[in-house]
Amino acid sequence: MTAAALTRADCEAMDRADPLAGKREEFALPEGVIYLDGNSLGALPRRVVARLDRAVQEEWGSGLIRSWNDADWYHAPQRVGAAISRLIGADPDEVISCDSTSVNLYKLLMGALKRQEGRKTIVSENGNFPTDVYVSQRVAEQTGATLVTADPDDIIAAIRRGGDDLAVVHLTQVNYKTGRIYDMEAITKAAHEAGALVIWDLCHSAGTVPVDLNACRADFAVGCGYKYLNGGPGAPSFVFVARRHLADFWQPIAGWHGHAQPFAFGHDYAPDPGIARMLVGTASQLGMLALEEALKVYDDVDMGALRRKGQALGDLFIRLVGQEAGAHGFGLASPRNADARGSQVSLTHEHGYAIMQALIARGVIGDFRAPDILRFGFAGLYIRHAEIWDAVAVLREVMDGRLWDTPEYHAKKAVT
Amino acid sequence: MTAAALTRADCEAMDRADPLAGKREEFALPEGVIYLDGNSLGALPRRVVARLDRAVQEEWGSGLIRSWNDADWYHAPQRVGAAISRLIGADPDEVISCDSTSVNLYKLLMGALKRQEGRKTIVSENGNFPTDVYVSQRVAEQTGATLVTADPDDIIAAIRRGGDDLAVVHLTQVNYKTGRIYDMEAITKAAHEAGALVIWDLCHSAGTVPVDLNACRADFAVGCGYKYLNGGPGAPSFVFVARRHLADFWQPIAGWHGHAQPFAFGHDYAPDPGIARMLVGTASQLGMLALEEALKVYDDVDMGALRRKGQALGDLFIRLVGQEAGAHGFGLASPRNADARGSQVSLTHEHGYAIMQALIARGVIGDFRAPDILRFGFAGLYIRHAEIWDAVAVLREVMDGRLWDTPEYHAKKAVT
Repeated sequence: MTAAALTRADCEAMDRADPLAGKREEFALPEGVIYLDGNSLGALPRRVVARLDRAVQEEWGSGLIRSWNDADWYHAPQRVGAAISRLIGADPDEVISCDSTSVNLYKLLMGALKRQEGRKTIVSENGNFPTDVYVSQRVAEQTGATLVTADPDDIIAAIRRGGDDLAVVHLTQVNYKTGRIYDMEAITKAAHEAGALVIWDLCHSAGTVPVDLNACRADFAVGCGYKYLNGGPGAPSFVFVARRHLADFWQPIAGWHGHAQPFAFGHDYAPDPGIARMLVGTASQLGMLALEEALKVYDDVDMGALRRKGQALGDLFIRLVGQEAGAHGFGLASPRNADARGSQVSLTHEHGYAIMQALIARGVIGDFRAPDILRFGFAGLYIRHAEIWDAVAVLREVMDGRLWDTPEYHAKKAVT
Repeated sequence: MTAAALTRADCEAMDRADPLAGKREEFALPEGVIYLDGNSLGALPRRVVARLDRAVQEEWGSGLIRSWNDADWYHAPQRVGAAISRLIGADPDEVISCDSTSVNLYKLLMGALKRQEGRKTIVSENGNFPTDVYVSQRVAEQTGATLVTADPDDIIAAIRRGGDDLAVVHLTQVNYKTGRIYDMEAITKAAHEAGALVIWDLCHSAGTVPVDLNACRADFAVGCGYKYLNGGPGAPSFVFVARRHLADFWQPIAGWHGHAQPFAFGHDYAPDPGIARMLVGTASQLGMLALEEALKVYDDVDMGALRRKGQALGDLFIRLVGQEAGAHGFGLASPRNADARGSQVSLTHEHGYAIMQALIARGVIGDFRAPDILRFGFAGLYIRHAEIWDAVAVLREVMDGRLWDTPEYHAKKAVT
């Protein structure tokens, strides 16, 4: 038996039944756009506009230096960390926001290797996000460690092969290209059994996929403020250090904001006893305040409901691409099983680049990742089921009419 | 012969003759405040308000991910670097904006030590800003180097004592507490003669004191975007690498934005051939765009005129404190000679903390640095000579009336 073809009316019915449908109104989305790239840059929460205006005109403009105290700018990194902790299964004082994901990864890798003195192997994934690999490569160079990367299905075996030399396992929970999810609990357990520490990159999971760091006994984590957390372009990152590691966790960049008493202006470095030891310099305050405000969108969100919606949107997309554009040679780079997939679906197509350009020109915004991946993200806080229908209708139009087959694309191919 | 006492009318005449007087209108300063803390957080340039609103509502809100290209967010770090280069005597492609000052110092120290293989001594100043010392301490710990700190007058001797082991001299051009200026050319020359490389921290000089990095043959520099450059709280830092070091400069934190081809998403790190190799993660874009806009205030500013005004304001302040409050036991922690002093004057007083609190309560905003320093900064772009008069009048009122002598202050003293 074949399931009956879905219609737009079916998708509209799904929207009427969606418990999160009302969240859409909290975002300022442009007319004429279907935004399937919230996994790259989250949409603008309306409330951020007024908050930033107040931060600029009142707190900076009128409050001036006094706002570090009067507006409590000082503790914004802690407040943001606490707000994120709820989304990732950590305690509020185990998470803090600062710097970029790459800089935080560097701190964690250097610190974790120092804790693991005598062990020198780092295990990561071949297809990990480039910056994760780059940071690891250079950390290995500095510490005399060896970076071993393996395919996703071979990670547990690579951990076992690491033996007594295995120091750190460093993985991204949800793969940026495929959306594939690792089993955080199983891998953390295998790593611990091998005597290793685990660093989880949550860039593509925080705020959209269930994460329970402490239930999994994760050691360390980092993540990004500008994807599903909607903190704005280049929003500050966050970093998690499990309480059991915190008291003597060493990190390599000893700046004044990580000092136990930054305003004593003492001559010798003494780290803050808690998570603030992960801080370095002065927080990028405008970005931090935007992120803090953006996170308030999550205050009344049931993360289980959000996860179910993200899965449903992905399932719907896969089904509709098959139904409407099944003859056009798309492959599926993401797991078909929604439980094994983050809030994105990646298709493959030999003309992927040109197809994505044609979609974007028609208001359907996803992104392209070389060599052939079309990435579509489904941020459940603001994407409607009917938009999935409309996006696939545009995809069908682009494919049926070969609208991607442009002189610009051929010119580009000739160059590359 | 004693000079005749100055009057407020004399200060008003100075304002009428001030070629930079018109710049004041470009800043949004609150009523009832005399802001002498631009050396800690620069005032808000009015133009930043509209720019940030556009960045948030149009570029982020409507443009979404497309703004990385359409609004050219990608090259904001380069554009900001180029705008700053003009203020510090560097070429536009030798400076880039990213991260915090502390993180950039870390990159430079680690990279400079690697260049100087075999040499292991870092020379810095006892009274250097704490984060400079902290970062150096931890870099020394990681690299087996030795950090030697000396008093300002002993730096040249310390350089000579370093001998063949001297690797890096790391100084802040203008001291944060005293405003004392180092002779960048003489120290750089002495360091080079000893075979060392020099890192200059320009946090308290960029945008207010003449800096000519290339004329001095400086090797590396960092600085801050939120003091005299008025980029807003926690604005991104900038970093300079002299062209002769750039092609093979190694830095420890290898993130994707420093890659030669970040969007090829290749597996192996290959640094950008130019200054972009100093980048790590995604730029904190809201802060970066605010800083970019703030720097436009400098477009028509003659840096010589700005320096002369900063010196004149400092001289006026010192003279008026003597004239109006000379009997109240203030010491001068800054050089009296304006050529040896940045755009700040620091007074000492045993009740400095309480006096500064009393000043701030009356709208005269400077800051206090333990144990006894009252710091007053003179940002020539927006401070008027008549405000110096008014600030000293309030200081006199506070001292004559012992308005600082409050129960709160005694309670605080009892605790500490």
